[in-house]
Amino acid sequence: MASRYISIRHLRFLLYEVFDALALRRFPAFEAYDQAAFDMTLDAAQQIGDTYLFPYYREMDRQKAVYQDGEVRVHHSIKTAMQVFGEGGWISATDTLEAGGQQMPLTLFNAALMIFYAANSNTPPHAFLTQGAARLLRSFASEELQSRFVPHMYSGRWQGTMALTEPQAGSSLSDILTTATPHPDGYYLIKGQKIFISGGDHNAVDNVVHLMLARIEGAPPGAKGISLFVVPKYRQEGDTMVFNDVTTAGIYGKMGQKGYVAAHLQIGEHDDCRGWLVGAPHKGLAYMFQMMNEARIGTGLMASATASGAYYAALEYARQRPQGRHPSNKDLSLPQVPIIEHADVRRMLLFQKSIIEGSFALLLQCSLYADLEKHAQGAEQRKAHLLLELLTPVAKSFPSEMSNLAVSAGMQCLGGAGYCDDFPLEQYYRDIRVNSIYEGTTTIHGIDLLGRKVMMENGEAAALFAQEISEAVQQAMPYPALQPLALALGNAAGQLQQATLHLFQLAAKEPAEVFLADATLYLEYFGYVAIAWQWLLMATAAQKALNEGAQHRDFYEGKILTAQYFMEYELPKTQGLHQRLTSDARITTRIQSPHFD
Amino acid sequence: MASRYISIRHLRFLLYEVFDALALRRFPAFEAYDQAAFDMTLDAAQQIGDTYLFPYYREMDRQKAVYQDGEVRVHHSIKTAMQVFGEGGWISATDTLEAGGQQMPLTLFNAALMIFYAANSNTPPHAFLTQGAARLLRSFASEELQSRFVPHMYSGRWQGTMALTEPQAGSSLSDILTTATPHPDGYYLIKGQKIFISGGDHNAVDNVVHLMLARIEGAPPGAKGISLFVVPKYRQEGDTMVFNDVTTAGIYGKMGQKGYVAAHLQIGEHDDCRGWLVGAPHKGLAYMFQMMNEARIGTGLMASATASGAYYAALEYARQRPQGRHPSNKDLSLPQVPIIEHADVRRMLLFQKSIIEGSFALLLQCSLYADLEKHAQGAEQRKAHLLLELLTPVAKSFPSEMSNLAVSAGMQCLGGAGYCDDFPLEQYYRDIRVNSIYEGTTTIHGIDLLGRKVMMENGEAAALFAQEISEAVQQAMPYPALQPLALALGNAAGQLQQATLHLFQLAAKEPAEVFLADATLYLEYFGYVAIAWQWLLMATAAQKALNEGAQHRDFYEGKILTAQYFMEYELPKTQGLHQRLTSDARITTRIQSPHFD
Repeated sequence: MASRYISIRHLRFLLYEVFDALALRRFPAFEAYDQAAFDMTLDAAQQIGDTYLFPYYREMDRQKAVYQDGEVRVHHSIKTAMQVFGEGGWISATDTLEAGGQQMPLTLFNAALMIFYAANSNTPPHAFLTQGAARLLRSFASEELQSRFVPHMYSGRWQGTMALTEPQAGSSLSDILTTATPHPDGYYLIKGQKIFISGGDHNAVDNVVHLMLARIEGAPPGAKGISLFVVPKYRQEGDTMVFNDVTTAGIYGKMGQKGYVAAHLQIGEHDDCRGWLVGAPHKGLAYMFQMMNEARIGTGLMASATASGAYYAALEYARQRPQGRHPSNKDLSLPQVPIIEHADVRRMLLFQKSIIEGSFALLLQCSLYADLEKHAQGAEQRKAHLLLELLTPVAKSFPSEMSNLAVSAGMQCLGGAGYCDDFPLEQYYRDIRVNSIYEGTTTIHGIDLLGRKVMMENGEAAALFAQEISEAVQQAMPYPALQPLALALGNAAGQLQQATLHLFQLAAKEPAEVFLADATLYLEYFGYVAIAWQWLLMATAAQKALNEGAQHRDFYEGKILTAQYFMEYELPKTQGLHQRLTSDARITTRIQSPHFD
Repeated sequence: MASRYISIRHLRFLLYEVFDALALRRFPAFEAYDQAAFDMTLDAAQQIGDTYLFPYYREMDRQKAVYQDGEVRVHHSIKTAMQVFGEGGWISATDTLEAGGQQMPLTLFNAALMIFYAANSNTPPHAFLTQGAARLLRSFASEELQSRFVPHMYSGRWQGTMALTEPQAGSSLSDILTTATPHPDGYYLIKGQKIFISGGDHNAVDNVVHLMLARIEGAPPGAKGISLFVVPKYRQEGDTMVFNDVTTAGIYGKMGQKGYVAAHLQIGEHDDCRGWLVGAPHKGLAYMFQMMNEARIGTGLMASATASGAYYAALEYARQRPQGRHPSNKDLSLPQVPIIEHADVRRMLLFQKSIIEGSFALLLQCSLYADLEKHAQGAEQRKAHLLLELLTPVAKSFPSEMSNLAVSAGMQCLGGAGYCDDFPLEQYYRDIRVNSIYEGTTTIHGIDLLGRKVMMENGEAAALFAQEISEAVQQAMPYPALQPLALALGNAAGQLQQATLHLFQLAAKEPAEVFLADATLYLEYFGYVAIAWQWLLMATAAQKALNEGAQHRDFYEGKILTAQYFMEYELPKTQGLHQRLTSDARITTRIQSPHFD
């Protein structure tokens, strides 16, 4: 059942047994999505992964994207994959039938995305960043603008990007300086610099469409004066495509994801870059957040899927590599045992499995909330909306941070071989590291969670989260084997609530610097609880299946053992975090620059 | 005081104020080592670091070692550095005056090594691996053999190596297959394969001298049948050097340390490889352990020094890069603040500082024990010996593991820039990762600590460690500001003892697999306590200096703040480890291979 890079069986388990994603058929938009449609989608995704993605993963690291003679050249397989994604309807998949999409539930689509990213974390981002950009146009641009850009993007012939970052404006988007000067013909003249633009220019597509933040002359300072523009590399004039004065100044020498270019763009060097306003002026940042929120889930997804690829490589090695003997039987006349026989190797594999499968679960949980946010109504809709808002920073950051460690554990399973390029672990290790930087560093998400989300709507989101956990605990308690797991989660969640309370008492009497000082650790704490919640859901589904006499008992027992691993080895890490977060010792707000020498 | 890659001031603080290394002068061998000699040594090391090492660090990553036309070519600066290290007496520094050395205390020598490795982690290993190999010959080889090899190695013209690993024998050295057939002329004919041989072949030296493990025909199986040979690439015959049938089959494509070659060697392909037995037959592994124990301290040292280089790069960036504003004053008309003003950046910098300086302290503490083990007598000697034995796996592994995370935090301070090669963080991140694999993976050291060291001599080493901590606590308690730190350490050490007791009760009733299953976590737990111990020593020394009205108050306050950071943010991580290690849930010994799919 396991492929060489992901367990499709695990995805089916999540979709059908843990989340009952087939129940989405109750919404008219999704009525076509029965289990056959789900299975077919996953099979088709695996086919693409096996054929167009996985075979080129390592090659595109060695034949990396290069900038030469003014052109960015990427691996040839990217062009083919863009066509496959475009012609197969993957880029438009979640859009409506009327718009040429497939009305695919995001829950199913993101499961497919896990397959793509696990097969190759360098190629699919081209297509699905394009999807995000197109959806942004679909949500906020005029029909006329949509018709000029979206079909080309959905077909995979034009690349879409998010063009936010500038040399002086990274985490601080308020400081964007790119200017937009209105022109009587209805467009704006754009001028500025954008850096770190993923997919920002390359030869696998005919055009690049930047969804770009800029300031209209005279706009108010800060976030309230930022507008969103669509700025193509080539613009249509009559029947021809004309260069739109978006120049690639260079590309970045990234440690990993070398197949996926990040470009430095000069916009309007010759005062001839035209951009078209998307939606209303000065609302750009709010619009962009739609794309960013999707991209954040996408980043957590890319991280855990990349870790999945690394895990299956490490697992294969651990099963094949003979080394050493059992501690209680070191008879040298016996052959060496495969290293998967050693407890510490199993621990490292369990760590990886618990992080990857737990993250996949959390990400599909969020995807389900996103589907419900869009299609459900009333209290169900509101609940889904609030939980998605609350969990987005967690689902972005915790998988990104932990997947770095998971791949490191995978590398460690291989010893010296893991550090060398005869095996893929070293590439996974380099590739995966960017996810805790993409779409806002972990710092930013910690502040988002603690500073905004936990108290949004008077704490309603946080209360709903506690309620979800409480329900999970209640559903697990009837199964004796799961009681210790349920109690562990219940305790940790209760402790988290206490720590939250402590922090909000702090917020009432101390400046924001103090309240938010350890927001990153709060996010980590929250992440452990959220993943433990998902593991309890999975363990409960697995126990049900076992009790009902399901086949593939190893599969289900593996879920329960991994849930036990997470509760025994990972969740206790919240204890140290709890102590820190409830301590009144101020260090990071007291220390000053000269103390660091 | 801070250089661009290490704080020499911190090294002086450790040597003079924390460890009183000048007291080593009471031993006749060290009588020349007064403070002027110490200072001169550190200055000379920094001079070398600034001139011959740091300027080439990044270049040798780009102009990496290559294997071409049967030759391994390394960066030109390595040849110069080998000459500088050789002619400056650095390779022989710790040897006796009679043997051409400087009788330098290892404590001082290792402080100098920290400077070298912080400046460049690719070049110095060539020289100091050579030193280890030469010391091995000095300890166990005949005078005749010594005279043939050691002078050339001390001069930096010949490279020394450790040639242990074979395709089927990595962690499991018992399985070595390389054969040694006695020849009537007194040498042995060696035949086999060695892999991952660091410095195994390159053009910066005239010859390579392998200290190689092999089996003499008819030797008993396992570790008791392994002998040590000296096997040069070229052997002397009369006045000429003749190729000794050691062929480089290839070099490894390492993720980092690309300037420092790891070679795959074919030995005796043409049945003409001569090796000379070092010491007695079948004692090779015991001899090699001398070199390995030194190399293990050296690996912890390389890890923390590499992290030091990364820290100062991150610190410089954090002071210069403006981004964002204070949470309590987001007035957009104000300029952005340097990111070191943000609490989470300070937390990441403190994490790095606490790991690096804490590791340096532990490593110099071990170096001091090594000096005392060699030069002191009676109870003092025995104590030093036992503590060095106990702490070697910790001083190797904890700094190696934690420095990976420290450099990752450094990269995170830079955001996207940290992931790209315009800044050195990405190289540090790749380079440092090998240290938890070199000289035995962390798994091996966990088993060494829990399975051998903690109970050695009926637990005497562990009792001595507890006593050291108790003394540190007592010395800190008179200072009110340090009491919370002392109590935190005392509690953690007491908990560690309880966990140890629990594990040994387990050992009495369960098979070794169960007892040792979480040995890696035990090592981690031990490591936190050991580094906390060092931070309490440092905080006490700093508090004394402040109370005595010392200048550079920022420096000393920085030590106390960093000690507080470690006790508040890092030491509490032992709580989760404690819970896990005292839990009776068996997971890694219960789970089986099919559960991992």
